[in-house]
Order: sequence, then structure tokens, then C-alpha cells
Amino acid sequence: MPAVVPALIAEAPGAALTRGTIERRDLGPHDVLVDIAFSGICHSDIHQVRVEWGSGIFPMVPGHEIAGVVAAVGAEVTRFAVGDRAGVGVYVDSCRECENCRAGNSQYCLKGNVSTYNALDYSGEPTYGGYSTQIVVDENYVLRIPQALPLDVAAPLLCAGITTYSPLKHWNVGPGTRVAIVGMGGLGHLAVKLAHALGAEVTVLSHSLAKKDDGLRFGADHYYATSDPDTFRTLANSFDLILNTVSADVDLQALLGLLTLDGALVFVGLPENEQRFNVFWLTAGRRSIAGSNIGSIGETQEMLDFCAEHGIGAEVETIGADEVDAAYDRVVASAVRYRFVIDASTIPAR
Amino acid sequence: MPAVVPALIAEAPGAALTRGTIERRDLGPHDVLVDIAFSGICHSDIHQVRVEWGSGIFPMVPGHEIAGVVAAVGAEVTRFAVGDRAGVGVYVDSCRECENCRAGNSQYCLKGNVSTYNALDYSGEPTYGGYSTQIVVDENYVLRIPQALPLDVAAPLLCAGITTYSPLKHWNVGPGTRVAIVGMGGLGHLAVKLAHALGAEVTVLSHSLAKKDDGLRFGADHYYATSDPDTFRTLANSFDLILNTVSADVDLQALLGLLTLDGALVFVGLPENEQRFNVFWLTAGRRSIAGSNIGSIGETQEMLDFCAEHGIGAEVETIGADEVDAAYDRVVASAVRYRFVIDASTIPAR
Repeated sequence: MPAVVPALIAEAPGAALTRGTIERRDLGPHDVLVDIAFSGICHSDIHQVRVEWGSGIFPMVPGHEIAGVVAAVGAEVTRFAVGDRAGVGVYVDSCRECENCRAGNSQYCLKGNVSTYNALDYSGEPTYGGYSTQIVVDENYVLRIPQALPLDVAAPLLCAGITTYSPLKHWNVGPGTRVAIVGMGGLGHLAVKLAHALGAEVTVLSHSLAKKDDGLRFGADHYYATSDPDTFRTLANSFDLILNTVSADVDLQALLGLLTLDGALVFVGLPENEQRFNVFWLTAGRRSIAGSNIGSIGETQEMLDFCAEHGIGAEVETIGADEVDAAYDRVVASAVRYRFVIDASTIPAR
Repeated sequence: MPAVVPALIAEAPGAALTRGTIERRDLGPHDVLVDIAFSGICHSDIHQVRVEWGSGIFPMVPGHEIAGVVAAVGAEVTRFAVGDRAGVGVYVDSCRECENCRAGNSQYCLKGNVSTYNALDYSGEPTYGGYSTQIVVDENYVLRIPQALPLDVAAPLLCAGITTYSPLKHWNVGPGTRVAIVGMGGLGHLAVKLAHALGAEVTVLSHSLAKKDDGLRFGADHYYATSDPDTFRTLANSFDLILNTVSADVDLQALLGLLTLDGALVFVGLPENEQRFNVFWLTAGRRSIAGSNIGSIGETQEMLDFCAEHGIGAEVETIGADEVDAAYDRVVASAVRYRFVIDASTIPAR
């Protein structure tokens, strides 16, 4: 019999998040039941609740930055035991058969992997995310959270962390690499920490210098305001990689001009509008524009272990269930430093 | 005293090409004087004569696909001797000091290399291109044309050949690689030959199937019409690299959907208009859009040697000086199979 568990639910597009209950499936032989401790608020939660990326499935329980502890395991589970610290990220299943899944890149599953929420699983049942007290996930899509990482600062690593770590690794960031991080919000602040820990020379390109002290503290070597036109003159031909973490429209020509020969501008922020470029901006310096989408399960584990080793966690502001709607407004206004996490113990009705 | 040599000259923007004379500089100690045998007509010649890429320097002598024989060498020239077969491509000098020049990538010279025509050299003198009987070029920017390559079919290799060879090599095309070539004109037909000779599985994406027999003869394994919507369904997620050789606007979303994980869409064709993309088209499959600009001098030599080894030349239609304006119209109408070369012996006034 499915378990009935408390959750924060958006009943309809754009609705406020209210307390209620959802059903979690019975534990299958390969399933893990996770008692959720913290769930991060990702900007994409807001886009999906507000149906800004196309249609949504309602009622919706957002949340794909989940950290907690294993409460039960299915009969054939081998990778987890009760009491293990566990994380769940952006997807909870994939086809496991396509070229990309077989190569360990299930984040790019050609059949389409199963998102942690706002999706239907392969049996047609809706998925509900981490704004809840418990979740049931196949062990192959559950991550181990190392002891060195507190669960609250670990939660945002499951999306914001892997979303920035994966392209930094894919584009070979390390000692000698010059990396610019555009935007220092939820994704950007982790990108700075990760790129620094990987050994790169890190520059933050932020609209203003308001967060400069934080940026330098997170490991940035340089911090420039994109509102200052001098920035684009000073930094011309400077970066091997620019990681764009903002979802607002960007000045592509200006950013591309900052790349060295063979440099790449990689989007992990997701502007809704189409972006424009002139091909000459690319042929000058064999530059490229690319996009990267989260990371694989294996790479997510690697990232968590890397963060534990280097003492990297998100900068978090912990909130209760009653504060989520206000938090959404602050996320949209870029007024959070740097990630909200919901304390799952506040979700059950009192 | 500078030499006065015959040339085909556009006296003003958009003017017809008429016979006249230009001055070539005295042979400096590192200069080579080349007797031009053939000069290819590149679409960019037309763009520049017609000032479709911004301003132009007039009078203009186009031509940057030059094949001929060395007629004289400066006192300190070591790499060429009189009688050597020689080629000149898109640029005739570079700063030799910047990061890119020092790394052997003078095609991306940060100071700006000196174009073979429609440019001022570093001393401020205008450069004149290959629609002429002789040219004087620093030996470091002159290529050797192997004996196995006839000069007429070699000439277009100096731009169209290297422009397609360089990205094929840079993106590691070889056995096991699935490559699509968009457009089978001057650049595209060489791209097909080169990609095939490199060992790739080659697909041509052309507007229609009109040139299919030629494409298969040049080495394509498959040939599809982009005017058929089924093409984009059949070939979804199929290519590691798509090389776009057309300068018309493209359907970026459709092309990007044909790329595999980590696939790249590389522009060597240069649309005048801005192109648009949605970031989601890139994050799906970590795809990238890039541009590539000709190739280095070293890589151009490598390409010529590769072509000699594999019996690759351009498919050419040889014309006389009186036919150049008509040829321009046919290039614009895509009615040449596949490259015009001007027989330089027809340039002097009779």
C-alpha cells in the first residue's frame, strides 16, 4: 500500500505552495526510501510552478535538491543501508538502454529521463519532488552524501552544484585555465567555489560589484562589473571558458569577445528568449557557444566527493514551509545569498 | 622600383572587373615573386567587391586562391627557389608576435593578419589579390603545391580547401566519425572529398537531390534533401559534426537536432544576418555552435600534402578574364560545379 506523506503542493499553475499529502509508491526491490532533511529551492522550481517553460503537471510538488537519510531499502538494494546519508537530484530514472545511458550519460537519455517532479515516470505515474518529508527512488539514482558535508549545504549541490561542476570538468578546467563565471547567484556562487578548487584562475562577471567581497571569499581571483563597459575592453581575449549561470538575456557579442582562441561560452542558465549571434563572432577565434544540462549520476557522486574533500557547500538560508512563497519572490529578485533550503521538518501540518 | 603588372580591377564598389595594371612591391629579402597560373573565384570575392561585408578598399583586385610558379626570390629566401610550384591563400602576413601567431595559429592573429586583398599591409600599403599575373609575398606565407596536384585544381584549395579541412581536423574527424556537410558548393564539395579521405562516414545535406550523383562520386556515403522534412526525423541524433558551408540563413533548431551528444555545428559559411537559437537546443545533448576561419599556414601545407596523397582537387571550370562578371552571377546563383578558376594568362590586355 502506498505511503501517504506530507508535502508542499502547488495545486494549479502559479498557485501558492500549501501543505497537503501525496502518495509515495511502495518500496520496490531496488528502491530506497529517503527521509528528507533539506530540499533546496532552485530557480527552475519557480519556472515550473509558474508554467514558464511550457505546460506543467498539477498538483505539483517541486524540489530536486534533496538531502536526507535512508529510512528503508528494498529487498535487492545493495548500494544503500538504513541510516546512510543520501541525496536525490534532478532525475530519478532513465531508460538505461539508449546510447547515452549505456555510456553513463543518463542526463542526456535519448528516451528522456524521468524528472524528479513535474513528470510522469515510465509507468505513467506522476513524480513528486523534494518539498516533502520522504521520497522513494531507485537506488541507481540516489547519491551518497559524504559525512564531511552537512545536509543543508549539501542539498543545493544536487542541482546547482552538478550543473556547474559538469561543464567545468567537461571543458577541462584546471590549473592554468582562465574561467569566467557570469552571475553569482545560486549556480554562480558554487561555480566560483568549484572552479577555484579545480585550480583555475577565476573571474566573476556580475552586473555590479555588490557581491565582490563574497566572490573573493568564495575563491574568485578577479571580480568585474558587466555594467562597466571598460570590463569588456580590459578582458578581451582573456578566457578559455565562460560559464553563463544567469537566465536573463546576455550580450553575446560582448561575452564572445572575451574568449581566447578556441574558447567556449557555455550556458547553464536558461534564458527563455531566443539569443542572437552573428557567425563572424564565432569564426573570429574559432569560438563556440554550448549548453550543458546538469550531470550524470556518476559525475554527481564525483562532485559530492570532491566537495567533501575541498570543504565546499552551498551558502544557504534555511527556511520553514511557511516561507517558501516569500522565498520564491526573493529568488526572482536575486535577493538571496545564495540558496534557500527548506527544513523538511516544518512541512507536516501542525 | 615596383613592378607594374596586369590585373583585373574593380574600380569602385560593385563595379565590373576590368583590365588594368597595379604595382607590386620590389622583392624584399624574404619575398617571393609568384607567376600566377590560376586564381579561384571565392564567394567572398563577390561579397567584398559588392561591399556586402562592410567597407572595401578601392580599386580592388580580388583573389585569394592563387596557384603558380616562383619567378624570383629575395636575397634571404630559403624555403623557395625559382621554378617551385607555389600557392598563396587568404592572408599574406601576420604580426608574428601575439599569443596566437606564436602558437602557429596566425589565421587568428590578434593584431589582425593582412588579407591577400582588400586590406592594408603593416606599412599601410593596399594589398592586391590573385586576379593578376604576378604577386609578391613573404616566403613565410607562401605554400608549396605538390607535383601531384595540377595548378588549376589546386588553386581553390588555398581557401575552400583549407576552410573545410581545418575544422574537420580540429574536431577530430576520422574513422568512426559521422559528419554532415551542409551545402555542396565550392566549399561543400571539397568538404565531402576531404571528410571521406579522412575516413569519416559522410552525409551531404543539400537543399535538393540535384547534385546527389556528384556527391556520391566525391565520397559521400549518404545524401539527403533538407527540403524534405523527413530528413530531419530520419537523421535525428546522428552526427558528431555538422559543417555548414552555406552562407544563407539556416534552420538552427533543425540542424542542432541532428547532432549526437557533444556534437558540434560548425559554421564556415558566413550568413550576413544574425542567427537565433534557444539555449534549450544546446543544453539538450551538450551541443555546441562554433565557427572556424580558414586555417594556419602550417595546416594549409598539411592540407595540400594530404590532397596530393589522396588525389583530391577542386572540381573546376576554367574561365578567361572576360568571363569573370558572368561567373560572379553564376556563383551567386549557385550555378557552378564547383569552382571557377581564372586562367591568369588571359588577364593581360591583348
